[in-house]
Amino acid sequence: MIKIAVDLLGADRSELELLGGVIDALKENSDLFVYILGTKEILEKELDANGVNPDRFEVIDAPEAISNNDNPMEVIRTKQNSSMIKGVTLARDNDEVGAFVSCGATGVLMVSSMMILKPLSPAMGPVLVCEFIKRNGKRICLSDCGANLDCPADRIVSFAKMGCAYMKAKGVENPKVRLLSNGAEDNKGTNLVKEANALLKESGLNFLGNIEGSTVLESDADVIATDGYSGNVLLKTLECGATSVIKDIRDYADTLENEEKEKLLSLADKLYKRYDYNTQGGAVLLGVKKPVIKGHGAATAETILSIIRVAYTLAKNNLTDKIKKEFNLAT
Amino acid sequence: MIKIAVDLLGADRSELELLGGVIDALKENSDLFVYILGTKEILEKELDANGVNPDRFEVIDAPEAISNNDNPMEVIRTKQNSSMIKGVTLARDNDEVGAFVSCGATGVLMVSSMMILKPLSPAMGPVLVCEFIKRNGKRICLSDCGANLDCPADRIVSFAKMGCAYMKAKGVENPKVRLLSNGAEDNKGTNLVKEANALLKESGLNFLGNIEGSTVLESDADVIATDGYSGNVLLKTLECGATSVIKDIRDYADTLENEEKEKLLSLADKLYKRYDYNTQGGAVLLGVKKPVIKGHGAATAETILSIIRVAYTLAKNNLTDKIKKEFNLAT
Repeated sequence: MIKIAVDLLGADRSELELLGGVIDALKENSDLFVYILGTKEILEKELDANGVNPDRFEVIDAPEAISNNDNPMEVIRTKQNSSMIKGVTLARDNDEVGAFVSCGATGVLMVSSMMILKPLSPAMGPVLVCEFIKRNGKRICLSDCGANLDCPADRIVSFAKMGCAYMKAKGVENPKVRLLSNGAEDNKGTNLVKEANALLKESGLNFLGNIEGSTVLESDADVIATDGYSGNVLLKTLECGATSVIKDIRDYADTLENEEKEKLLSLADKLYKRYDYNTQGGAVLLGVKKPVIKGHGAATAETILSIIRVAYTLAKNNLTDKIKKEFNLAT
Repeated sequence: MIKIAVDLLGADRSELELLGGVIDALKENSDLFVYILGTKEILEKELDANGVNPDRFEVIDAPEAISNNDNPMEVIRTKQNSSMIKGVTLARDNDEVGAFVSCGATGVLMVSSMMILKPLSPAMGPVLVCEFIKRNGKRICLSDCGANLDCPADRIVSFAKMGCAYMKAKGVENPKVRLLSNGAEDNKGTNLVKEANALLKESGLNFLGNIEGSTVLESDADVIATDGYSGNVLLKTLECGATSVIKDIRDYADTLENEEKEKLLSLADKLYKRYDYNTQGGAVLLGVKKPVIKGHGAATAETILSIIRVAYTLAKNNLTDKIKKEFNLAT
């Protein structure tokens, strides 16, 4: 059995609505077991009504939600019975839990993962990775996409390594790495970028050089390494450009009629799912003892299904061991 | 007469092809005069063949082009007769020249503008601004989009000021400024961003707070201030996201037939012009004694027309005086 823990509280939608994603994920993978954190009574009733085999899940009663207004350091002490803190603690204490999923407050999830779950090694910092779908249909991982805003060049090398371990866990052999910069040439970039470029060359990684924002969706790379600030700008801006044109398609479709209109609106919906990284997928926090998958606050049951798929794959393929190997830590 | 200087060499296309943009611009504005830098014989013949009034232009013979492989500091000494260096020198020496336009090598254009044309004041650095079209059809200016990669927070305030002067020259009263960050709240961002946020609040500018990459096309702002590295990532990534969806529209159109296909392909072309900031428009170098407009190397005659329009507007509305006023310099 592949066991993961899923926190259903703290998102915009109700736990009952999001539970649908868990049920679908259990149908999809017969070797999946889910610890579900939320209101036991509500969730068990619904799982029973859907005829889900009780051997495939355990509901852990934690009806208290964490909100975006909660102070991260404070709630770790004061809200130990909340679904998020209980989930992180379960991931720490239960060796069988391979990954933790939550759509709750990002800040609290990051801090509690670092403070409770703890880094893989004392010297290791966390990184937040996310994926885009390239134009050729393959995926590319952005590491860091927002966890480390001010960081030295050697940390960017560690983001590249974690990104590689992540892509290996997803089946990519010898992942190709590129470094975000304002130009493709090695001498382009801030002092930080130039230093990271030099370090990546000596890192033993499959480093192919710099990449510009203009080519991320047509790149040969599997991993884009960058500091978390630039990565966050890239992630959000890419989505902005894509979704703006999708809105233009919808505006144009509104001037049409009947089948022609329907076909274009359905194209727009399909494209939205492809480019709306934020609400459709999730970011993964690496560098802590288990991968923590953060879904968007606006997550739907479909989002939950999609991020449980990620959690399942990462747990099944031992991402944590792959990261340890990348950093020469004992596995 | 509004006088500007246009360098037609150093781009991918021939000077003869690009000249079409100059001719169209002269037709569009009856009070425009253009100093054209390139091969005198070729250009004068074509201008004559098109019946352009010789009182509206002067061709300055400078048949030598600058290439991307040229070392900026070196060519300033060795290629003084090249179209670019001659154009920058003309902009310096001829008081009547209000702006300089070139699609040649960016590095050489930046360095020669700084070294020959010189900064507006000894303490002032240059900034590269560009514009996007927001979803409401209004324009927003990004300052800096690539000139200053490593810079302190007070320089970001000066980028904001130059962006405001630029938008004022384009008719916007009391431009609204936002600062690029990874979150909308004041406490979000790198140390640099947080410091710039605090300085912008005290700057006397119409500062509205931070902006994320996700909302740049739906923002209430007229100016986005940022360091040149993040600005460059934003500019290129926005274009990447938008053009990728435009390619998807074309791919989909290819599965259709007849009128339905043609209509969609024409939508894609229209959108491409709106979002392809790079080849359609130009970036403007500010902080030097005259605005220098840099068109993309892949510029067409249409691009030349579009960037001459920018140069014409900035010269006509005395952008340089507006910048001086923003920085309390004598005008």
